[in-house]
Amino acid sequence: MTEASENQIVRADGRAPDDLRQVSIERGWSEHAEGSALISFGRTKVLCTASFTNGVPRWMSGSGKGWVTAEYAMLPRATNTRNDREAVKGRIGGRTHEISRLIGRSLRAVVDMKGLGENTIQIDCDVLQADGGTRTAAITGAYVAMADAIEWARGKKFIGQKAQPLIDSVAAISVGIVAGTPMLDLAYTEDSRAETDMNVVATGRGLFVEVQGTAEGAPFDRRELDALLDLALGGTASLTEIQKAVLAEARANA
Amino acid sequence: MTEASENQIVRADGRAPDDLRQVSIERGWSEHAEGSALISFGRTKVLCTASFTNGVPRWMSGSGKGWVTAEYAMLPRATNTRNDREAVKGRIGGRTHEISRLIGRSLRAVVDMKGLGENTIQIDCDVLQADGGTRTAAITGAYVAMADAIEWARGKKFIGQKAQPLIDSVAAISVGIVAGTPMLDLAYTEDSRAETDMNVVATGRGLFVEVQGTAEGAPFDRRELDALLDLALGGTASLTEIQKAVLAEARANA
Amino acid sequence: MTEASENQIVRADGRAPDDLRQVSIERGWSEHAEGSALISFGRTKVLCTASFTNGVPRWMSGSGKGWVTAEYAMLPRATNTRNDREAVKGRIGGRTHEISRLIGRSLRAVVDMKGLGENTIQIDCDVLQADGGTRTAAITGAYVAMADAIEWARGKKFIGQKAQPLIDSVAAISVGIVAGTPMLDLAYTEDSRAETDMNVVATGRGLFVEVQGTAEGAPFDRRELDALLDLALGGTASLTEIQKAVLAEARANA
Amino acid sequence: MTEASENQIVRADGRAPDDLRQVSIERGWSEHAEGSALISFGRTKVLCTASFTNGVPRWMSGSGKGWVTAEYAMLPRATNTRNDREAVKGRIGGRTHEISRLIGRSLRAVVDMKGLGENTIQIDCDVLQADGGTRTAAITGAYVAMADAIEWARGKKFIGQKAQPLIDSVAAISVGIVAGTPMLDLAYTEDSRAETDMNVVATGRGLFVEVQGTAEGAPFDRRELDALLDLALGGTASLTEIQKAVLAEARANA
Amino acid sequence: MTEASENQIVRADGRAPDDLRQVSIERGWSEHAEGSALISFGRTKVLCTASFTNGVPRWMSGSGKGWVTAEYAMLPRATNTRNDREAVKGRIGGRTHEISRLIGRSLRAVVDMKGLGENTIQIDCDVLQADGGTRTAAITGAYVAMADAIEWARGKKFIGQKAQPLIDSVAAISVGIVAGTPMLDLAYTEDSRAETDMNVVATGRGLFVEVQGTAEGAPFDRRELDALLDLALGGTASLTEIQKAVLAEARANA
Amino acid sequence: MTEASENQIVRADGRAPDDLRQVSIERGWSEHAEGSALISFGRTKVLCTASFTNGVPRWMSGSGKGWVTAEYAMLPRATNTRNDREAVKGRIGGRTHEISRLIGRSLRAVVDMKGLGENTIQIDCDVLQADGGTRTAAITGAYVAMADAIEWARGKKFIGQKAQPLIDSVAAISVGIVAGTPMLDLAYTEDSRAETDMNVVATGRGLFVEVQGTAEGAPFDRRELDALLDLALGGTASLTEIQKAVLAEARANA
Repeated sequence: MTEASENQIVRADGRAPDDLRQVSIERGWSEHAEGSALISFGRTKVLCTASFTNGVPRWMSGSGKGWVTAEYAMLPRATNTRNDREAVKGRIGGRTHEISRLIGRSLRAVVDMKGLGENTIQIDCDVLQADGGTRTAAITGAYVAMADAIEWARGKKFIGQKAQPLIDSVAAISVGIVAGTPMLDLAYTEDSRAETDMNVVATGRGLFVEVQGTAEGAPFDRRELDALLDLALGGTASLTEIQKAVLAEARANA
Repeated sequence: MTEASENQIVRADGRAPDDLRQVSIERGWSEHAEGSALISFGRTKVLCTASFTNGVPRWMSGSGKGWVTAEYAMLPRATNTRNDREAVKGRIGGRTHEISRLIGRSLRAVVDMKGLGENTIQIDCDVLQADGGTRTAAITGAYVAMADAIEWARGKKFIGQKAQPLIDSVAAISVGIVAGTPMLDLAYTEDSRAETDMNVVATGRGLFVEVQGTAEGAPFDRRELDALLDLALGGTASLTEIQKAVLAEARANA
Repeated sequence: MTEASENQIVRADGRAPDDLRQVSIERGWSEHAEGSALISFGRTKVLCTASFTNGVPRWMSGSGKGWVTAEYAMLPRATNTRNDREAVKGRIGGRTHEISRLIGRSLRAVVDMKGLGENTIQIDCDVLQADGGTRTAAITGAYVAMADAIEWARGKKFIGQKAQPLIDSVAAISVGIVAGTPMLDLAYTEDSRAETDMNVVATGRGLFVEVQGTAEGAPFDRRELDALLDLALGGTASLTEIQKAVLAEARANA
Repeated sequence: MTEASENQIVRADGRAPDDLRQVSIERGWSEHAEGSALISFGRTKVLCTASFTNGVPRWMSGSGKGWVTAEYAMLPRATNTRNDREAVKGRIGGRTHEISRLIGRSLRAVVDMKGLGENTIQIDCDVLQADGGTRTAAITGAYVAMADAIEWARGKKFIGQKAQPLIDSVAAISVGIVAGTPMLDLAYTEDSRAETDMNVVATGRGLFVEVQGTAEGAPFDRRELDALLDLALGGTASLTEIQKAVLAEARANA
Repeated sequence: MTEASENQIVRADGRAPDDLRQVSIERGWSEHAEGSALISFGRTKVLCTASFTNGVPRWMSGSGKGWVTAEYAMLPRATNTRNDREAVKGRIGGRTHEISRLIGRSLRAVVDMKGLGENTIQIDCDVLQADGGTRTAAITGAYVAMADAIEWARGKKFIGQKAQPLIDSVAAISVGIVAGTPMLDLAYTEDSRAETDMNVVATGRGLFVEVQGTAEGAPFDRRELDALLDLALGGTASLTEIQKAVLAEARANA
Repeated sequence: MTEASENQIVRADGRAPDDLRQVSIERGWSEHAEGSALISFGRTKVLCTASFTNGVPRWMSGSGKGWVTAEYAMLPRATNTRNDREAVKGRIGGRTHEISRLIGRSLRAVVDMKGLGENTIQIDCDVLQADGGTRTAAITGAYVAMADAIEWARGKKFIGQKAQPLIDSVAAISVGIVAGTPMLDLAYTEDSRAETDMNVVATGRGLFVEVQGTAEGAPFDRRELDALLDLALGGTASLTEIQKAVLAEARANA
């Protein structure tokens, strides 16, 4: 497999292997949340809200540091066939837990908790429609929501005028090997037949926050891993540009 | 209090007491569900999906009849301050249960279960943003989603070409007495200071399906009840017109 | 359907359409509770206790106001066939939640929370035997239990000697249209074949606290609704007389 | 401590150490259950129902044997201060589990499962008022309810006319050492200060089914254990007589 | 059945009716817990840890007394066929609850809570491999773990140098009637066919803490009960010697 | 940082950066399970059992394929301070879910499900003592248990004599950057101060099954990632040798 052959491959939706899907971020979608973004990666749509509250959980009280935490969920009919609600089942599933924790860690990686002060940002990422890549869209959108919540808090003087709680930006993308070809930003049909599936979370400066690669079919070798990491960093760099552009605009509900 | 005095009262958002808020119904919002509608009553936004599946719960099997059931939920930051997720708490709250049951009964009232055959329609109403009237918006939007799911099933020949499972349409609206004045379609700030609060579910033909009136402050008398019922039937008649208009258009995702 | 024809109809248990079943209230049934009543509406038997405690939930502390809350449940074999215990299932069902909330709202409607002071009355209504109308019997009996708990608290000087926390009395009754005839106080067999079913909660002065009407079969029109409301107010007036008579007697366990 | 000294001790309620409290059994209290009994041991009141159903749990199917199982619960205000409902807490407590299992084992000890055939008897014991000895009253009353359910099933021909599923009767009583004196049938105030507390379940023929002795204060020696066992067998013999007398009467609701 | 005949009976594993299985206690097995013991009764292996913490539950605060509590659990494949995890099922079963409570009561019977001061000892007994007698092994091993935790606390000066919180030792053993013969320390295959099964908890001084006898098959008479009690006291006396010997050694991890 | 400087660093327990802790695998530890291993990575001890059962979950029935699934848990006092039991809390935590899923995926990566036939292997990994690396020890030990369960099944003819369900072996190790130095097999104190923490699961042939890297402190760059991957593959190669050696011995309980 060469760069050349990769570029000749055309995906079901017409993309080249290293193309992102159409990404859009509707900032300030929620009229209630301190920060929010409705993000789309193609047909995947995730509503991300950032709720800012004064104070931190009891075990952190007095530390002078803030806290960022996240929850992820999917509407029952976000998917092609309906899934039972976790609230009805009375328990959170393993996948939901895993993704919620990933989002929280990813956002905390770019926050200076001292700069945030004893305040909490609660991120909620609710998948309204799913077509692969919901966790990566969630992280990418949640960063925008969090950035707006921090600006809101600065406006309210809940954090200092000179405090810089955001030490970098963060975005995430999926990559995978599908039919032998490394591909960027897998749609559901691609994801479900990928041999190897990897989610990469990286900062705006191009450093890794999380690398999670899984052999769904055959185990993968070092060369394949390297190809996927290259592809992913290209994707997160593009997402970083989109985040910057969106945050540069005046906020709709500000 | 006379009709005249009522009409002179202007509400916070500029409406007359008997005005609905701006109502919009985005049909076919979901690309996965057999029927769907994103409905807005002012700032209240509810995503309604109708999932059609062959077969019925075991206890109905062999009856020749179908089943319609509904679940209602709210995103954690749909409201002005964040509410904990019911899935995280591990149990469904009383209010959620109550509204889910109301939506289910309301929709079943206009379905001929024999006409539906042994098929199930699962309605999901998820409140994306709340500003009062979420249950009435949910019922009104769910009817549109259900109607589309039935047409989808007819197209797939899961129900007979001549079967008419829908025997009427259904819509719902809230009414209440606020500061002594009966008002239609209460926004959250009105609802929270209403002395009496009533939700009325009515069919397109103007018959009652549900009447739920509650004295939040002082108990109410028969004359007040009558005024609220009049107001509500006016509201559901307007909603019926909007539903008809939306369903007359070609479906987006059809 | 005329008044005349209604009166000629004889129900399975020999009642006229506007007859209550035999109502009995055994006040002070429990030797432990501050107030209690074992109420029967025919074969429906509900044990209502009112537990008075000093203090209020944390979120009300310092408000100078009291709190009244209620829980409803059914013994597993209160009904014709056994139902699994909700404790064993590990979750409260929607119907139970709904009725508990209704009872709480109904009782709060006749309590001046300032007069109650920072005290809590916890109502428990446990259905020992069910034959329709369990929620209406529960509300009617719970009022008696609550009145006794308040008198107990006055005796203990937990509330002022001149405080009048009870601003009215409250009772409830079911009405419904069965085989085309509006009927009062439905027994289970009537309830299960009613086209329309309504529960009305009204004060001793004849004002409405709750009106909950549901079309079980065909939707109902305004004329039917009016007939049901008339019938219900007659029923709650009779129940008010029975409550007064019982509370006028010396308390058994006082 | 001698027999003589024991007999001179007078308990708070006037009983001698070896006296039972007033025992009453109201057979057929429930109009729905196949067998039922409202049993009182003094102020302790337990409603016992026996629900007979055809068939057995799947794991016993085809064995030709029946099944008897039991659940015990307490109303929230059965006790002097209110306990939260287990259904609301979402889990059954250890004490409830333990007593439910004890009741089930005790009843199964006197049933010939082959004689019962592939039928299930579900016992429910709900404590309406508690003053010590609720588990022993429950077992004693449940036997009466079960006996009636079996007769009901014989009448319905669900079990053979000659089948004798009941191979003995069963009753239970508490005993304990209070202030150095062995006493029968402890009331709550006695139970709470007993040094040793024992529940004994015995058959009508005087054989042990369960012996559960616990040192609440100081451990006990063999001589004390023997004294308690003697006292208990006297108590269960008296209860056996009461059960026989009640079952000899014509059944109220038969 | 005579003493002579009993002694001639040989059990599946070669033991005489009054023989214990091979008992071993590996003290200080855990490197983290303040006290611990891996105890074996034949193939039954239970890991017992005692966690010592300063402070007591809120309801005991200020009493000057300590608290001892216990939890028991079984690994899913401790048994011959796998059992689902209680954590996965989301609820603790009745048997687990019952045994946890028994262990806690047994240990508290030999602790002077004043001597312990306001400190808590949390016992955990986890069955790694089960072959009958898990609860009796758990109690016997937990005593050793608790004794070590108390010595640890004395070393840390969390309890006074002269305080004697342990007023006695405690051990437990099962006995039962198998094929007509009273036997000591039943292995699983014996336990599952025992007519009568009894667990006896006794102190080092030979006093009873708990006696729990259950007729699994036919009810038992007084003579059988006496034979079982004799056998059990012999067993607990032997276990007391083993505990003493183990505690007399220098502690591995001390 | 050079290779040279790395090798001069000495860790708290005397290891070089690229040293594993002492690894031991006690095969056949459980007398009940079809395969089992008690594995130690230094002070971390995990009991791994593999339960083999005929049949597969209903959704796989008829596929001709087998299933492998895993559950991970920790004893409450496996850690330095006690954690509440998940069974008592009534819910599985996110970390537990995540690790259970990881173990399951890792083992499935080396199993040919067709070769396994319609049989299920349930893996249980219970941490008896924790000192970092519990998930990697669990995977490494579970492979041994699974291999033995497969041989057991071959002996029982539940799988074909020539079937080769194991297509490779699998082992796992943690790596991390501690104080600027990449280190292998982190103990708890190292793990808790690592800037970057990575778990790598690899096959005996040296292919990746899972790569999970997380920036705990500062994000990491590509060069650091490469160093960690090199170190990890060295570690899994050593573990593979240990697994081979253990499996080459005659099985203790076979």
